[in-house]
Amino acid sequence: MRMYDLILKKRNKQKLTKEEIEFIINGYTNGDLPDYQISAFLMAVYFNGLEPDELLYLTQSMTFSGKVFDLSSIDKPKIDKHSTGGVGDGISLSLAPIVASCDICVPMISGRGLGHTGGTLDKLESIPGFKVNLTEQEFITQLKKIGVVIASQTDDLVPADKKLYALRDTTATVDSIPLIASSIMSKKLAEGIDGLLLDVKTGNGAFMEKMVDAVKLAKTMVGIGKKFNKKVVALITDMNQPLGEYIGNSLEIYQTIKILKNEGPKDITELVIFESAKMLQLAGVEKNFVSAKKKVEQQIISGKALEKFKQLVEFQHGNPKIIDEPKLLPQAKYCEPVLSQKEGYVSFIDTKFVGTACCVLGAGRQKLGDKIDYSVGIRIIKKLNDYVEKNEPLVYLYFNDETKFEQAKNMILNSYRISSKKSVQPKLIYREIY
Amino acid sequence: MRMYDLILKKRNKQKLTKEEIEFIINGYTNGDLPDYQISAFLMAVYFNGLEPDELLYLTQSMTFSGKVFDLSSIDKPKIDKHSTGGVGDGISLSLAPIVASCDICVPMISGRGLGHTGGTLDKLESIPGFKVNLTEQEFITQLKKIGVVIASQTDDLVPADKKLYALRDTTATVDSIPLIASSIMSKKLAEGIDGLLLDVKTGNGAFMEKMVDAVKLAKTMVGIGKKFNKKVVALITDMNQPLGEYIGNSLEIYQTIKILKNEGPKDITELVIFESAKMLQLAGVEKNFVSAKKKVEQQIISGKALEKFKQLVEFQHGNPKIIDEPKLLPQAKYCEPVLSQKEGYVSFIDTKFVGTACCVLGAGRQKLGDKIDYSVGIRIIKKLNDYVEKNEPLVYLYFNDETKFEQAKNMILNSYRISSKKSVQPKLIYREIY
Repeated sequence: MRMYDLILKKRNKQKLTKEEIEFIINGYTNGDLPDYQISAFLMAVYFNGLEPDELLYLTQSMTFSGKVFDLSSIDKPKIDKHSTGGVGDGISLSLAPIVASCDICVPMISGRGLGHTGGTLDKLESIPGFKVNLTEQEFITQLKKIGVVIASQTDDLVPADKKLYALRDTTATVDSIPLIASSIMSKKLAEGIDGLLLDVKTGNGAFMEKMVDAVKLAKTMVGIGKKFNKKVVALITDMNQPLGEYIGNSLEIYQTIKILKNEGPKDITELVIFESAKMLQLAGVEKNFVSAKKKVEQQIISGKALEKFKQLVEFQHGNPKIIDEPKLLPQAKYCEPVLSQKEGYVSFIDTKFVGTACCVLGAGRQKLGDKIDYSVGIRIIKKLNDYVEKNEPLVYLYFNDETKFEQAKNMILNSYRISSKKSVQPKLIYREIY
Repeated sequence: MRMYDLILKKRNKQKLTKEEIEFIINGYTNGDLPDYQISAFLMAVYFNGLEPDELLYLTQSMTFSGKVFDLSSIDKPKIDKHSTGGVGDGISLSLAPIVASCDICVPMISGRGLGHTGGTLDKLESIPGFKVNLTEQEFITQLKKIGVVIASQTDDLVPADKKLYALRDTTATVDSIPLIASSIMSKKLAEGIDGLLLDVKTGNGAFMEKMVDAVKLAKTMVGIGKKFNKKVVALITDMNQPLGEYIGNSLEIYQTIKILKNEGPKDITELVIFESAKMLQLAGVEKNFVSAKKKVEQQIISGKALEKFKQLVEFQHGNPKIIDEPKLLPQAKYCEPVLSQKEGYVSFIDTKFVGTACCVLGAGRQKLGDKIDYSVGIRIIKKLNDYVEKNEPLVYLYFNDETKFEQAKNMILNSYRISSKKSVQPKLIYREIY
């Protein structure tokens, strides 16, 4: 078999066989195939897509390119959740302990901030001492003991994805639905899960800006999950404004604690409860959605979910005192409002730009290896269709560097559109795909 | 400037600027940009093409990526010819000396066999002693002395094309019209020519099988030439059957001598005369095509063209005795006919397959670095619409290895279709594009 012929086949829209796709993935993973052939192949996939069969073989080859966690020794349903990412999307941080507190195993492998969005691991690392790099043994031991782990991908888990993702990231082949779907699903399948909740965000702050693309990605991932005999549900949720009230690393940890104390902002709390309840249903521990939702609410009100979060922090070497004393989290030196220059209704928020402003303050990386400032971020005061007076705060910026404040402030002012009329209020959850 | 953004732009069908294209070509030539980004870019070009401006900038950047020959010290029109390649297409071998004998400078940089087609350099190297690797100094000195050189690309001429071509060859991005056009034109423009005749072959033995693609390539190359203020004419010519009577290296040299002695096969002789006359017109040495053609015919009949060929062979260290004693050329041990299995008209020849059969005998390379057998080849006896009796020879095969004979024989039998009716006779020359 020659890689040249396989590139040609994909370029000419001919279907690749299981053996051919295995040849590509195994050859690339073990270093037999050069980057330049794979990048040409990926670009051909970008243009010509993958047939459902090809996508299945690709995901299979990637999943089994390294170790696959064996969680069979854990006698609980193993359910995970993945979000395609957005601005202020810290849902996993409260959802994982809520679900784990319902006697469900949550083996969550998470990622870092990407582009204008934050990453679960970065947020957790804002907790002093918190460790996200666990060995497989540590991962499984912790799961057995407390039923929840949030950690980074180990070196031997889905090595094909690591190589492919790094290559895609430098060759403009990231935003291809089959490549995104196989990358996400292979990592989740390698965790050894029984079920998966997918949160596919759509809107101006999401990677899938258009609804049609979000639905396509969701259906593609659900399709893969079914072929692997996993229970998979995807939600299409809104990202036309930041989710919740806080954006930033320690700020989202602070908000997580509030959510778990039942003091969180309405929108993100509602979504956390909805998604947690869906996971209870996927786990088969609750008969219907109404009872599942009630159970989730009880776990919050009773303090059991917060207790599980504390366990999680403790087990991963974080300082659990941050829960009662949030001031122990990294604090920015300054906090200043960005004032509205006119009065009216917030009719549009360029969410991606708000996320980028947050990165400018230091909450995200401009390039690989950049150091993150965990303390900085944004508190959203005015959301879509809120009325704002002239000189009333739109947001507060938490920052350490005054030059960056000016830049971020202008970005915020350019992100908000204030009009005399309200606009259509986006739904929180658009669709459910299963 | 980041290569990532330029790949993304091309992928999203946005137009690249002159500076951006120079960044890509210079960066790749000097090793700053990695293969894997360039191959992704080339695949994006394959799918999205290049705008005329982008193509001009690309060709310019490639042309000036290395040395450009300065032929200003030669006080003659400098005209070259390029063919996109076919089976039995040894036209350059007789055309170059004919045109040079008319006091026109022919600085011809040629290539090797590619796929199922032969290469001018390989054919010339079948002449004992013939040397195709010349230094720039040798190249220019010879041009001044005898007005004609046929040599290989020097290391410092269009280095960008060398790297790009090698990469395209392994990443299935060869057959892209803008990439083919810029590759051909940059090499020809770097020769320091005033005018260029392009022979774009179409049909089942050509790289551009479809007429529409051949015309597109021809127009693209003529367009580039005009922007460089060069006189360029393209001919669209037929490749639905092998050209002339002989296919193979020394066999095509033998046929060249026959053409120059006015004893050549009708079709190839006609095309050689036509193309040579076109070059005289491009050089401005003849007022009209009729007088140019007459001049070319005189050069053949008078023996001056053959004399120029002899000079060419002598200057490049070949044995000139082969002209009077063709038996001094490499001779195959065996010559056997392939007999028709039925009677009727030759209604179709799979020309690519005939070329491949010739390679199987040893006349071409299966892979880079393979040694060529200069002596083997095919003599075409029956051409399109010829009548053939059962057991009458279709072709003769010249070979040294009997096992290969059987394979090639079967390929020939599978290439020829014999029917009770004639088919439409293809024209020799379809169109002229200028």
